[in-house]
Amino acid sequence: MIPGPRHGARPGAMRDSAEFRRIRALIDSVAAPCSEALLGPGDDAAIVESPGRQCLVVSTDLSVERVHFRREWLTWNAIGFRATAAAISDLAAMAARPIGVLVSLAVPPEADARTLDELASGIGECLRENGACLLGGDLSQSPGPVFIDVTVIGSADVPVRRSGARPGDELWVTGRLGGAALAAASWAAGLEPDPRARRAFERPPSRTGAARMLCETADVHALIDLSDGLAGDAEQMAAASGVRLVVESARVPLHPALEDWAQPEVALGMAVGGGEDYELLAAMPPGMAGVAAAELAREYGLDLSCVGRVEAGEGVEWHDARGEIISRPAGGFDHFDVES
Amino acid sequence: MIPGPRHGARPGAMRDSAEFRRIRALIDSVAAPCSEALLGPGDDAAIVESPGRQCLVVSTDLSVERVHFRREWLTWNAIGFRATAAAISDLAAMAARPIGVLVSLAVPPEADARTLDELASGIGECLRENGACLLGGDLSQSPGPVFIDVTVIGSADVPVRRSGARPGDELWVTGRLGGAALAAASWAAGLEPDPRARRAFERPPSRTGAARMLCETADVHALIDLSDGLAGDAEQMAAASGVRLVVESARVPLHPALEDWAQPEVALGMAVGGGEDYELLAAMPPGMAGVAAAELAREYGLDLSCVGRVEAGEGVEWHDARGEIISRPAGGFDHFDVES
Repeated sequence: MIPGPRHGARPGAMRDSAEFRRIRALIDSVAAPCSEALLGPGDDAAIVESPGRQCLVVSTDLSVERVHFRREWLTWNAIGFRATAAAISDLAAMAARPIGVLVSLAVPPEADARTLDELASGIGECLRENGACLLGGDLSQSPGPVFIDVTVIGSADVPVRRSGARPGDELWVTGRLGGAALAAASWAAGLEPDPRARRAFERPPSRTGAARMLCETADVHALIDLSDGLAGDAEQMAAASGVRLVVESARVPLHPALEDWAQPEVALGMAVGGGEDYELLAAMPPGMAGVAAAELAREYGLDLSCVGRVEAGEGVEWHDARGEIISRPAGGFDHFDVES
Repeated sequence: MIPGPRHGARPGAMRDSAEFRRIRALIDSVAAPCSEALLGPGDDAAIVESPGRQCLVVSTDLSVERVHFRREWLTWNAIGFRATAAAISDLAAMAARPIGVLVSLAVPPEADARTLDELASGIGECLRENGACLLGGDLSQSPGPVFIDVTVIGSADVPVRRSGARPGDELWVTGRLGGAALAAASWAAGLEPDPRARRAFERPPSRTGAARMLCETADVHALIDLSDGLAGDAEQMAAASGVRLVVESARVPLHPALEDWAQPEVALGMAVGGGEDYELLAAMPPGMAGVAAAELAREYGLDLSCVGRVEAGEGVEWHDARGEIISRPAGGFDHFDVES
């Protein structure tokens, strides 16, 4: 145990600078109380109590302006929320409970106090939604784009990996897919997105609670979050598990803004290729999902949809409604296309 | 415990991209084996075993091109080493043992595989020097400067804070100060730095081992690393501890490249205002330092110098060789001046 009072004064590694003194206070203000933090921001480092026999789960996620987002598309609040949500999603993907995050920010000189206030409020809203606290951070000027790096720390009795899918398992997806991709594609085309799609992009869902509920009510063999899109993330799960995933394209749950799309193949491409939905893909034995689906619907109003099955083999096989093999649905939105 | 084999395939949150696939492998290659990591890079997150009754210590440090370093000044290897060393120094400052780090990189499109190879080798060299492993990371293109954010995780039985200095304590500093500031000032003036100063800037010392040895052999009341310069960091310790620090300027150990400087006040300004020396400032009761100094000299060839004392009061008081109060020595190198 650490003697003395708990410090909550300021993120540890921040540099002194008159310009940033107020911002430091703002970022401090987003820090929720954290029962595990024996020492929060304020010293050279934060100290996290080792949570009994649980594992600590850590990950990091980087958001760069003009690569992952554009300032023209998003409010500063949404930029902060989204960067934090993307990082915390990796804890959901392990069925881990969030403990806290460390946030490093680099912002251009023209970013004023109000800008940083909004950014911090978005980060704080996401932290509160996930029951996570701010354990530390760093702040710098940027002579170029905005840069937000969020490192997350969580705990889990038994973290669920992406590598446990077994032949015979069913594949289940939470929520509806493709909203974020539709928003990004709309902006890239110079159009104002459907408000529901815009919302999906600005406020990615927090699935940390749902993931733990799913893994407590069902024997989930493998779990991954849909950050790169169902197509890519299914390939990750297949490779890590050493199995083949068979996905039935007609059962992929489309985001409401895509449901009545005139070109169904475009809608499907966005739903499976788009990424940044931050929903979950789970592999579990048949007959497991019923109770979990009811619990997720009751507690979170969240759909759980069967999208396929696991077979011996490798890779991902896509089937149409008649069970015929089709090529991987293409589409969506790639980070590295943004600049073009 | 996590079933199944340990994964060491790739940092968790990295995006898929043909361009970066090779780089991912390179960054993987810097990861040393990590006994605490039940699951290393390769899944959505890394899992760190909770180390018995020890505390986990976490911190993050951001390095931005043209703010913290310039590519004209440093090799990519040195950029990677330095960014990692700066972050790990916060573990030394808590007397924590490094466990692992998460590294987020944003690099411009023109950065080729060799560039990233060198960057990764610098990161890896610093990790090995500190007995730390790579627990995860993220990688992105940058449409502007290079960004490197390093989050460190360590453990400590009793982390040593900056807030424990008490009246009557002596103040001790490891190593020699001002080398990094001299290098930066030389470059900024268009001069090639003294090779010893250049070395201090490129390869900041690893004091994680020395810090633990110091705290095991002496009753260290307060500890901080000299990242912002002795003047600024002494103010941090004074404020956190609620005491006055009295520093005798004549006893500040100057870096060898500054010892024979024609203008001693300029040399002193660099030594106390310069920052980025990543040495340690410790407060401990009188008579404690003898054994520690001998141990540090024997094990690390490291000086331990008494630079002053702690009194009741507040702030930092600077004394000259005759014990007269002088104004805070000015000088060094401020990050936010780099652009001017």
